[in-house]
Formats: sequence, C-alpha cells, structure tokens
Amino acid sequence: MTTIFDDPDEFADDQLAGFLDLYADRLRGVPGGVVTLSDGEPKVAVVIGGGSGHYPAFCGTVGPGLAAGAVVGNIFTSPSAAQAYSVAKAADQGRGVVLSFGNYAGDIMNFGIAAERLRKEGIDTRIVVVTDDVASADEPDRRRGIAGDFSVFKAMGAAAAAGHGIDDVERVGRAANAATRSLGVAFSGCTMPGADAPLFEVPAGHLGLGLGIHGEPGIEDVPLLPAEKLAGLLVDRLLAAAPDPAPSARVAPIVNGLGTTKYEELFLLWRHVSALLRERGYTLVEPEVGELVTSLDMGGASLTLQWLDDELEEYWRADAYTPAYRKVRAPLDRLDASAPDRAAETGDDEPAPPATTASREAAAEAARAVRAVRDLLAEHEEELGHIDAVAGDGDHGRGMLKGANAALRRVDELPPGAGVAWLLARAGRAWAEHAGGTSGVLWGAALEAAGASLGDDRDAYTPAHVADAVDAFAESVQDLGRASAGDKTLLDALLPFAAAFREQVSAGAGTAEAWAAAAETASQGARDTAGLRPRVGRARPLAEKSVGTPDAGATSFALVVTRVGDLLTGR
Amino acid sequence: MTTIFDDPDEFADDQLAGFLDLYADRLRGVPGGVVTLSDGEPKVAVVIGGGSGHYPAFCGTVGPGLAAGAVVGNIFTSPSAAQAYSVAKAADQGRGVVLSFGNYAGDIMNFGIAAERLRKEGIDTRIVVVTDDVASADEPDRRRGIAGDFSVFKAMGAAAAAGHGIDDVERVGRAANAATRSLGVAFSGCTMPGADAPLFEVPAGHLGLGLGIHGEPGIEDVPLLPAEKLAGLLVDRLLAAAPDPAPSARVAPIVNGLGTTKYEELFLLWRHVSALLRERGYTLVEPEVGELVTSLDMGGASLTLQWLDDELEEYWRADAYTPAYRKVRAPLDRLDASAPDRAAETGDDEPAPPATTASREAAAEAARAVRAVRDLLAEHEEELGHIDAVAGDGDHGRGMLKGANAALRRVDELPPGAGVAWLLARAGRAWAEHAGGTSGVLWGAALEAAGASLGDDRDAYTPAHVADAVDAFAESVQDLGRASAGDKTLLDALLPFAAAFREQVSAGAGTAEAWAAAAETASQGARDTAGLRPRVGRARPLAEKSVGTPDAGATSFALVVTRVGDLLTGR
Repeated sequence: MTTIFDDPDEFADDQLAGFLDLYADRLRGVPGGVVTLSDGEPKVAVVIGGGSGHYPAFCGTVGPGLAAGAVVGNIFTSPSAAQAYSVAKAADQGRGVVLSFGNYAGDIMNFGIAAERLRKEGIDTRIVVVTDDVASADEPDRRRGIAGDFSVFKAMGAAAAAGHGIDDVERVGRAANAATRSLGVAFSGCTMPGADAPLFEVPAGHLGLGLGIHGEPGIEDVPLLPAEKLAGLLVDRLLAAAPDPAPSARVAPIVNGLGTTKYEELFLLWRHVSALLRERGYTLVEPEVGELVTSLDMGGASLTLQWLDDELEEYWRADAYTPAYRKVRAPLDRLDASAPDRAAETGDDEPAPPATTASREAAAEAARAVRAVRDLLAEHEEELGHIDAVAGDGDHGRGMLKGANAALRRVDELPPGAGVAWLLARAGRAWAEHAGGTSGVLWGAALEAAGASLGDDRDAYTPAHVADAVDAFAESVQDLGRASAGDKTLLDALLPFAAAFREQVSAGAGTAEAWAAAAETASQGARDTAGLRPRVGRARPLAEKSVGTPDAGATSFALVVTRVGDLLTGR
Repeated sequence: MTTIFDDPDEFADDQLAGFLDLYADRLRGVPGGVVTLSDGEPKVAVVIGGGSGHYPAFCGTVGPGLAAGAVVGNIFTSPSAAQAYSVAKAADQGRGVVLSFGNYAGDIMNFGIAAERLRKEGIDTRIVVVTDDVASADEPDRRRGIAGDFSVFKAMGAAAAAGHGIDDVERVGRAANAATRSLGVAFSGCTMPGADAPLFEVPAGHLGLGLGIHGEPGIEDVPLLPAEKLAGLLVDRLLAAAPDPAPSARVAPIVNGLGTTKYEELFLLWRHVSALLRERGYTLVEPEVGELVTSLDMGGASLTLQWLDDELEEYWRADAYTPAYRKVRAPLDRLDASAPDRAAETGDDEPAPPATTASREAAAEAARAVRAVRDLLAEHEEELGHIDAVAGDGDHGRGMLKGANAALRRVDELPPGAGVAWLLARAGRAWAEHAGGTSGVLWGAALEAAGASLGDDRDAYTPAHVADAVDAFAESVQDLGRASAGDKTLLDALLPFAAAFREQVSAGAGTAEAWAAAAETASQGARDTAGLRPRVGRARPLAEKSVGTPDAGATSFALVVTRVGDLLTGR
C-alpha cells in the first residue's frame, strides 16, 4: 500500500521535489529529471531513466562513478521525449550522451525521439537498451530490463568516470548488457498511490516466476518454496540462460528486493544463492544484496549475474557515490583481516560432578518435564504471541519456545550420569542464551536457581526440598525482574503458585498432589491478571490497552506448571 | 508478510549467516553477533544491539566510524547476556566498551548482566541507553528507543573513531541521547516469519500515532492524513517535546521508513517536513531519509531530530562506512555547485499565427472536446487501469488522464485568437509531455498531426477535411508505434474508425453523423480485440493471459471517439 502522498496524480513530481531538497548539495533538478553536479572534468554523460516507483532506479544512482543524469517519468510510465531531451541536454558535458534504459516500448519511443532531437543539435547521442530479464522472452534482444539495469549503468558510469570516449562507453554498455542476466519472482502486488486495490495479485501460497518490475503477470505461478529451494530455482534457471560462451567463471551478483521483501530475507536467500554458485565453480565478485530496482510496495526478489571479463570487472569494482549506491574502496583498504580473533566462547563444558542416585532420578524426571514443556509451548506459541501483542511486542510465544527448544537440546546432550542441579543449570543457561528477551533471562536464571537449591548430593528429594526449590525460582525472578505482585507480570502466577505449593506441603501433601493444586492457583492468578494494569516494563505506556487481556508471562507460567503437574500425577 | 525463510525459528541465525558471507571482507562473525575488522588503531569499542528484524539496525551499522560490534538477538527479542558478553569481548580493543541499545526491559537486563561479567574480567564497560521515542512516556528516561538509536550510535561511533577515551565516548553518547527526539506513525502491522497473521493491525483508514518498532500498539489512532498534514502532525508533536533549553536551532533530521513505506513516500514526506522545520527557523544539517531502523514488513515512518551543539555536529557530519550506512565526504568535495546551468526548456511560447474564423470556431469546438474527453477519462481511469493490468503494467488509465489534464490546462491558457491547428499542436505536445508512456506519445503526436492536416487557414472545414485529419491521426500512430492491424493495439479501433468515417463521408454524411457511425465501428473493433493475442510491445510474452480481455488502448480510443461523437451530435 502506498500511504504517504498528497494528490496521487502528482506523486512522481512531489517525491522528486523532496529528493532534490535532500540532495541539493550534489544534484540539480532540471525540467524532466535530475543531473549530477560536475567535478570539473568533462565526461561522457550516461543518462538513465524510466518511470517512477522504482527507487533507487533511476534518480538514486546519479552521481560520481555512475549516471550523469536521470529522466524521471510518472509512476511506472516512460518519461516523455521532451523530458529525456531536457535532462540529456543539461547533463551533456560536451563529450556526448549515452541514453540507457530498460527495454519497454514507451521508453524506446521517447528516448528515441529525444536522441533524434539531440543529434540534430549536434550532440553525439547513443542508445544502450537493457534486456536482462530471461523470463520475458527467449530472444535476448526482445527481453525487458529489470534489476540488470543497474549492472549495465554501473559499467557505463565507471567507464565514463575513467575518462573514456563515447564510442568506448557505448561499447562497454553493450558488452555489459550482453553479459547480464536476471530472473525474478514476485510474492505480492503493489498498489499505486490513491488506488483502492493492488494492480495485480499473486495467488495465495504461490510465487509468480518471472514477474516484471511493473507487476506484469508472471510466466508461471509456483507454490511458495523454502528459501533453499527458491535459491535453487533462481540459480538453475538463470544459469540455463547464461551467455554462451561465458567469458569467465567470475560473476558480479545482485540479489535485489522489490520493496516489501526485506533485507534479512534477502540475506537469507543470498546465503543459499552464494553456496550454490560456488558449488558450480563460480567466483563471486563484490556481490550486492539490497534494493536497487524496486516496484513500490511489491513483494519479491530477483537474482542478477553479470559475467565478467577484465574490463567489466574493473568497472564493477570501481568507486561510485550516489544517493542510494555508495561504494568507496579506501575505508576497506585500511582494515586488517589478519587481526587476532578475540572472540570468547561462553565455555560451559566441564565434566558433570558426581550425583546421587536420587539426583539422577530427579534429573531424568526434569528431562521428561523439559520435553513436555517444549511440546506444550510449540502448541501454544501463536496464542501466547497474540496475547503479548495486545500491549507488548508479540514475541513471548516465540521466545519461550526458542528457550525450551534450546534447553531440550542441551538436556539431550548431557551425559547419563548428570544430576538434577547440573541438568537444570545447563538447561537454564541454554534457555537464557537462545530465548533472549526478558522472559528468557528470567526463566533461565530461575531454573538454574531452582537446580542449585535442589543440589546433586541428596539421597532423597522430599516435598519440602521441592518447595525450597520453587521458592528459589520465585526469588530469582523477583531479584532479576525488579517487579512486585500486582505489576501484571509472571509473578502474579508464580507467587500464588509458590505460596500454595508450600501450604499444601506443610499440610502433608506429596509433591505431585501439592503441585497439581498449586497449578490451579497459578492458573487462577494468571486469569486474574486480565484485570490488572501493567506497572513495569515496556507495556507501561499502554497500560489501558492491556486491561481485559491476561499477562502473557503469567499465562505461559500457568500453562507450564499445569503441564508439569499432569506429568507428576501421571495424567 | 515475511516470505523468504527456511525454518522460521532459525530465521535470525540464517539471515545472519548470509549477511556475514556477504560482508566477509569487512566484518567477522563471533558467537552472538558481529564485529568489525580493525584498522590497527585501538579505539573504544561501541557495541550496539537488540533483536533482529530491524535491519540495518543493528549489524548493518557496524564498521569504520560507527559501531565496533553488534549483538544479534532473535526476531524482536533481546539478545542474551551471553551473546552480549561474547560480542563485547571480541570487540574490545583494550580501551573499553560502551554497550548501547534501546530502552527495553530485556536489553537492560541482558546487557546489564554482560557488563557485570566484563567488568569482573577487567574490561571497562559503560552503558548508554537510548530513549528517543517521545510517544512512549512523558518522563524522558522512561522512553523507549526507536530510530534515534542511530543518531546516538553515530555520535559515539564518530567520537570513538576520533580516538577519544571511554569517558568521552560515554559522555557524548549521553549528550546525544539527551538531544535526540523521535516520533513515529504506523500504517500496517508486520508478520513474523512463519506466522499466519500480522502481530497487530492498524484500523483500516487510520494511522497509529506513536507505535513502537516492535508493533507495540500506538497511543492514539488517527484517520489517515495527506502527506502535508502528516508532516505537520509529526513536526508539531516532536517540537513540543524538544529539549529545554535547546542547545541551538541546528538539527540533524532523520525520516525513517519502517519497512514497506517506500523511499518515494519518504521523500514526499521529507519535502513537507523540511519546509515546516525551516519555517520554524531550524537549520537542517545533512538530513537522512531512508531505512535505518525497520520492523520487518511494517508500514510506517518516523521523524527524528538531534539538536546539535558544535561537538555533536562534528560527529554527525563525520565519515562512516558500514554495510548499510556509508558517508564519505571526499567525493562530494570534488563537486562544483557553481557549474553553469545548461538545462533546456522545451520552449513553446511563440505567439499564435493568424487563423481564419472557421479555424477559430473549430478550435473552440476542439477545446470543448478536450474538456469532455478529460472528464470522460477521469471517470474511466480505474477501469482502464484494471484492463491494462491483466497483461500490462496497469498505467493506461492514469497515463491517459494525465495527458488529457495537461492538454486541457494548455488549451485553457491559449490566447482567444488561436486556430485549430495551433490548438491541437499545443494540446498534443502537452499531452505527450505529461502523460509519458507509449499512449501519451502516440496521442500527442497524432493530435498534432491531425491539427496540421486541418490547418489554420481554411475558410470552411468540410467533412472531407475532417476525414483527412482522421487519416493523418491514424498514419501518425502507425508510423510511430510500428504496429499493424490485428496486433491488439489502439490501431484495432482506430483503423476501422478511420475507414468507416471516410466511407460515411464519401456516401454524403455530415461530420457529426459520420463520426457517430464510425464511433460505433470503433467500439466494435475495441471489443473484438478481446479475442486477439498481442504481437508487439511489452505484453508480448504474456500473450495468452491477455486473451479474453480487450486492449486498453483500443478501449480508451473507442470511449473517446464515442464521447466526441455525442458532443458533435448534441447528445
């Protein structure tokens, strides 16, 4: 959804005004677009362009080492011939102009008319059309231009910055285009400013293979894939369309996001793409992962490869400094890759101390409980997240599950002779380590404290020993969390649980019986938190919103102790 | 929607692996996060961190001039104490560590435990908590940290890079935080990897004022605003919470996008924000507009201001070179802002030549037709866009309306004595200039050609003259568009129209009568394009998808000639 605009019809012009205000120290607005300030050394002017809605294409890549100017059309619409003429005329530094853009009918027509007019005025004008999208046609010269636009512009911009003449810059551009291939996938459509509905939709649970950057429908809908398989699809199909013969096994890769497919997702995809390319024997030269050619708020990504010869590699590696693309070698050259590694492991692998039989039996029971709790939390992950999202950040279910998963993995690794204190300490540290967040730290530290209270050296564990351990758990949470009863936290289930357990034990109940009764008290306490206003933690400013919903931490505590109670009573 | 992942629970680790692969030439992975390679000069280590899902926060801003390391937690979850300890230990260069992060309970707890452990090992460790979000609490020190994280990290990173000691770096960090204020709005929620539903939703047609970067609910839901009013809301509310007394009227602004609110929208917002701030007397120092602290695919934006004194200004302006934030002064210093302006206007303001009375009358009729066509296209904009979106980029309705709007504005400006050729030439050029795209160029050139055929010097315009003008229109479209009948273009309505009009006129019909009859033929031709496969233009690879839907250009042509026919026959 495009949300920020005034008059939707003026979106392209309005955003350009903001862009020009922002970069007034390096760019100049001219009728029809943008030109870079000159560094005094006349160069061939590489003038790029196309419709708006693709930022940083096209005006975001104007500057030293890249384009001399960009023609800025309306959203997803070719600029007019008059705009292209105006920008090219302003960008010309007396050494001629190369107009470059993706292969679309409107751009071909408008830039073509502009080129004719420029030539009539004596300005040597060349045209380099980008045709990288292998999904759009079998014949290379009929393909449309997508993220490979950037790869071709970069080569020409670097050639122009190096001082080459127009024949060379044009030749480099054609060579770069011949060596560049892209393939994209789309996950969701984009919505034009002011429109009610997306331009198109990808069927739910599918991706559109080969969708263009204007949302032109794809050539094939494929069920959504895990990242590893998606990488395989992109790499296989792209390599099948490699230049033949390929100039080398050195490639300049781009993983490009279309707008709402975010950086972390692109990094995750890159991890698989890079592994697959290396497996096939490719050397990856200064890869780029990010947003270089977008489509408003479209979801999707593409893979571009430029097969490098020595000349293209030099231009790909060259410095550039534009609003959206900045590459400067000097700061990296000062870094020292051979510096000693000071990384510290947490070191937690001493051998387990001797433990009594009772402690080992208790450890076995604790291990069963950890497994049951993990299954329980997997089941309730989403529910806990939703409760937490009402007045928090929604991470509670996920954090608890991550913690329990880590605790279980650690428990599974422990030697058979480990006692209960040793086990709970390792499980607790693993929980805190992997869950992250407040609840992870509290649960981890509290499990360790409970284990320490039990110890590994007893010959029997009485209900009173368990009550002491429960109290140690509660004290740890209180000390570390700095909250009190009534603050709408975990404590509002935990403190009633501890009190009820102690009371049952004092009245002569066994551990299982006391635990089950106390779990009921905890559940009631958790439910009662719905009526409370939070007084600590990040939910505080949202106190009113949370009234009516129970606390997520109290809820998960009640669920956990109830499940453990079921285990103890054999239910 | 987060779409690219393998095991959702491992998302944070998996994406980090890709990130580290990508930047292996400048960063090093350590247990718990990332550290920069050293440049050999020991510095105070600024170690930042928090949950994942906020890229470029936090690992994207590790590098020369910024952070020495970043601790990477699970999605929206504080890293563990062990992670923070491990990264800080690896980042330490012997001059101490400043841990810095946003004010969230989990981070406070985990970084606090890590700091204790580091101090026990003799590493001088300080903590600077960021509290910029004015919406989250009235008391400055209880506020949470959002995009102002970046402003505070930047100041400390620059101070450390300048060689200052740990006391100074900590002092600068505290001063930067005290001088930094942010306020955000959210338009839509974000969806965690693997989740079915967003963490939260903003009510339709509203924005959430003050929403946090984890999707914590806002403090107030406000109906969606045009960009100008949104800028006013942000500026007013933020300035109301300015530091008191403010150190100066110099501010370092950030307009930050949360994920799916894209660059063009942010530029558009910046245009208004910058104007409002300048009106209030502020000097804007090297503003940043883009994505610095995101929240997966959340929609929204925030405004951050850092009030600058001389020291903070120096640090704000300083170079930095990290994966996601690169600022290098040298390339800009080589630019020459005083270079002459070579921008060319299209120049179209010669006086109108003399025109006959008949030509002036025809011009008046043409002006009425332009107005009627504009209203017609406004009515059909969305419908034409949807037709075009089936196998094209969906811009047809918008392009036609932009063209007609521009033509009408130009017609309204013309002097009263203008003849029909002069009027159609100006209207056509304005259409082509502002519509952009294929249809804009074709309509613009064709209107000009039709006008030239009519001329301004006739004493009467017979039906045969009009038939000649219609043929000139058609020839212009054929020449420029290089398509033929049957290619599923505008021509499949235009050529039958021209033939039918000529036939009617030859049979003795008047202009109005012939036009109305020909318009029916055009409409039939447009409908018949539904059965065709496109053979030219970007729709070509999608030929099959378009079968069953008429061509958008043929459809709009038929609508326009039908409306003009109604006007001529007085319907």
